[in-house]
Amino acid sequence: MLKPLGNRVLLEVIKEEEKTVSGLVLPESAKEKPQTAKVVAVGSGKVLEDGKRADMDVAVGDKVIFEKYAGSEVKYEGNEYLVVKDSDIIAVVE
Amino acid sequence: MLKPLGNRVLLEVIKEEEKTVSGLVLPESAKEKPQTAKVVAVGSGKVLEDGKRADMDVAVGDKVIFEKYAGSEVKYEGNEYLVVKDSDIIAVVE
Amino acid sequence: MLKPLGNRVLLEVIKEEEKTVSGLVLPESAKEKPQTAKVVAVGSGKVLEDGKRADMDVAVGDKVIFEKYAGSEVKYEGNEYLVVKDSDIIAVVE
Amino acid sequence: MLKPLGNRVLLEVIKEEEKTVSGLVLPESAKEKPQTAKVVAVGSGKVLEDGKRADMDVAVGDKVIFEKYAGSEVKYEGNEYLVVKDSDIIAVVE
Amino acid sequence: MLKPLGNRVLLEVIKEEEKTVSGLVLPESAKEKPQTAKVVAVGSGKVLEDGKRADMDVAVGDKVIFEKYAGSEVKYEGNEYLVVKDSDIIAVVE
Amino acid sequence: MLKPLGNRVLLEVIKEEEKTVSGLVLPESAKEKPQTAKVVAVGSGKVLEDGKRADMDVAVGDKVIFEKYAGSEVKYEGNEYLVVKDSDIIAVVE
Amino acid sequence: MLKPLGNRVLLEVIKEEEKTVSGLVLPESAKEKPQTAKVVAVGSGKVLEDGKRADMDVAVGDKVIFEKYAGSEVKYEGNEYLVVKDSDIIAVVE
Repeated sequence: MLKPLGNRVLLEVIKEEEKTVSGLVLPESAKEKPQTAKVVAVGSGKVLEDGKRADMDVAVGDKVIFEKYAGSEVKYEGNEYLVVKDSDIIAVVE
Repeated sequence: MLKPLGNRVLLEVIKEEEKTVSGLVLPESAKEKPQTAKVVAVGSGKVLEDGKRADMDVAVGDKVIFEKYAGSEVKYEGNEYLVVKDSDIIAVVE
Repeated sequence: MLKPLGNRVLLEVIKEEEKTVSGLVLPESAKEKPQTAKVVAVGSGKVLEDGKRADMDVAVGDKVIFEKYAGSEVKYEGNEYLVVKDSDIIAVVE
Repeated sequence: MLKPLGNRVLLEVIKEEEKTVSGLVLPESAKEKPQTAKVVAVGSGKVLEDGKRADMDVAVGDKVIFEKYAGSEVKYEGNEYLVVKDSDIIAVVE
Repeated sequence: MLKPLGNRVLLEVIKEEEKTVSGLVLPESAKEKPQTAKVVAVGSGKVLEDGKRADMDVAVGDKVIFEKYAGSEVKYEGNEYLVVKDSDIIAVVE
Repeated sequence: MLKPLGNRVLLEVIKEEEKTVSGLVLPESAKEKPQTAKVVAVGSGKVLEDGKRADMDVAVGDKVIFEKYAGSEVKYEGNEYLVVKDSDIIAVVE
Repeated sequence: MLKPLGNRVLLEVIKEEEKTVSGLVLPESAKEKPQTAKVVAVGSGKVLEDGKRADMDVAVGDKVIFEKYAGSEVKYEGNEYLVVKDSDIIAVVE
C-alpha cells in the first residue's frame, strides 16, 4: 500500500469510458483541462505553523476533478497512480 | 453535483444577451476584461494558519464579475462551468 | 450596484477638466504617472490570518490618487469604473 | 492637502543647492545613488497581521535620504511631490 | 554516521532489481519520474515560527518514493546516499 | 548625523591598508568577496509582526564583514558611508 | 576572532587528504557536490517572528557536510574560512 505524505493525495485516474457513465464529461479538447480521478489514499495534512495539521478536503473513495499535469505518476503492484497535492484538486463530484 | 474545494467557486458564465437585460454591460472589446457569472457552488474557504477557514465573500446565486482567463473550465452533466478562486472575483452585482 | 470584494475599491476616474478645478494637476506627460479618481464603493477589507478583516484606508466619496494601469475596468449601467486593490491607492486628497 | 496611505510617505525632494547648505553632499555621479528630501506627510502605517499598524519611522519635517527611482511622482497645487514607501527611506539626517 | 539536519532525510536509493521483488515497479521510462529508497536517518524536523520543530513524516527503515533529481548525493564510508528534504518525499510504501 | 532606519546599518568601509594592521586580510582577488567596515550608526531594528522590533546584531564601533555590493553609498559632511541591511553583515570581528 | 551573525556558521573546509582518514569520501567528480568542513564558530540563531532566536543545529567542533558553492569566503589572520547559513548545512558527521 502507498501512503501519501503531508497534503498529498493518491489518485487513480478515471478513463474516458467511465466518465460518460458517471455523467461527467470533459471538453473534446482534453489538453490543459482538468481531469477526473478516484481518491485511493490521503496524507495526514499539511503541517501548520503551530505544528498541527490542516484537515484534508477529500477522503478515500471521493471522485474528484484535478488540475491536469499536476503531480507525479507512480506505479505500484501493476497499477498506475497519480500523487497530487490537495491544492491541485479543484472539486469533488457528489 | 460539483463541490469546489478550499477557496474555489463554481461559476456559470453569463452570456452577452443576458447581460443587457441585467443592466450590466461589458466594454465592446471583451479581450482581457472581466466577465460576469452566476455563483453555482462555493468551497468551504481557505484554511488559515490556525486551522480555521476564512469566510467566503460570495454565496450561491450571487451575480459576480471575475477576472477573465482565471480558473479552470469543467463540463458536468452537459453544462459548462468555470472554477475560480474567490480572489479572482472582483465584485458582486447587487 | 457593484460591491467590490476583499480589499478592492470601485473608482470613477476623474477627467482632466475636473482636476484643474480641484487644484490637483498631473504632470503633462501622463504616461506611467498616478491618476485621480472618486471612490464609489469599497470592499469589506482583506482577510487577516486570524480571520478578521483589515480596515479599508478609503471611504465612499474620497478623492484619491492611484497607480496608473492598476486594476480592472468594468462598465455598469452605462458608466465606466475601475476596480483596484486598496494597496494601489497612493494618497487621499483632503 | 495630500494624505499618503498605509506605509507611504509624501516627500518634497531637496535640490542640489540646498544640500550644500545642509552639509549633506551626494556623490558627483548622482545616478543610481540615494537622494535627500523633506517629509511633508506620512501615512498611518502598514497594517500588521493582528490588524494593528506599525509605527512610521519618519515624521513630518524630517530630512531623509531615500532610494532614488523609488516611488511615484505627483503634482498638487503647483508643487511636485514624491510618494515613497517608508521602506524606501534609508536614513534620517539629524 | 551521518545525521541529516532540519527537515532533511538520508536515503539509500533502491536499485531496479530490488524493486521487482518488493512489488513496486516504476514506469519503463524512468526519466523525471519518482524513485524508491530506504530511509537511513532523519533530521530533527523543520523549526517552526514558535521555535518548536515539526514532526518528520518518515522514520528510519521506511521505504519511500521521492521526487527524482531532488536532494544532494553524498558518499560516506564507501556507501552512496542521497539527502533530500522531507517535502521531496511523495509517499511511504507500507 | 545620519540615523539609518529599520534594520539598516551605517558603515564606514575600511581601506586595505588598515586591514593588514588589524590582522584581517581579504583574498587577493577582491572581486565578489566580502569587505570589512566599522559600524557608525544602527537603526532601531526590523518591525516584527507583533509590532515590536528585532534586536540589531551589531553595535556602534563594531568591526564587521559585509557582503560586497550590498547597500547604498551616501556622502555626508565630506565623508563616504555605506548603508546596508543587518542581514548583509556576515560576521563581527572580535 | 570572527563571530558569524544570525543563522550563519563559520567553517574551515576540510581538504581531500583529511577526508580519507576520517572515512568520509566524496564522489570522484567533486563538481556541484557537497563538501565537508569543521565548524569554527556559530551565530546566535535566526530571529523568529516573536523576537526569540531559533536554536542552531550545529556546534563548534562539529564535522559537517554543506552545499558546495554556498556562502562567502573570508580570510582572517592568514586562515581561509567559509561563512554559510545553517540551512546550507546538509548533515553532521557523527
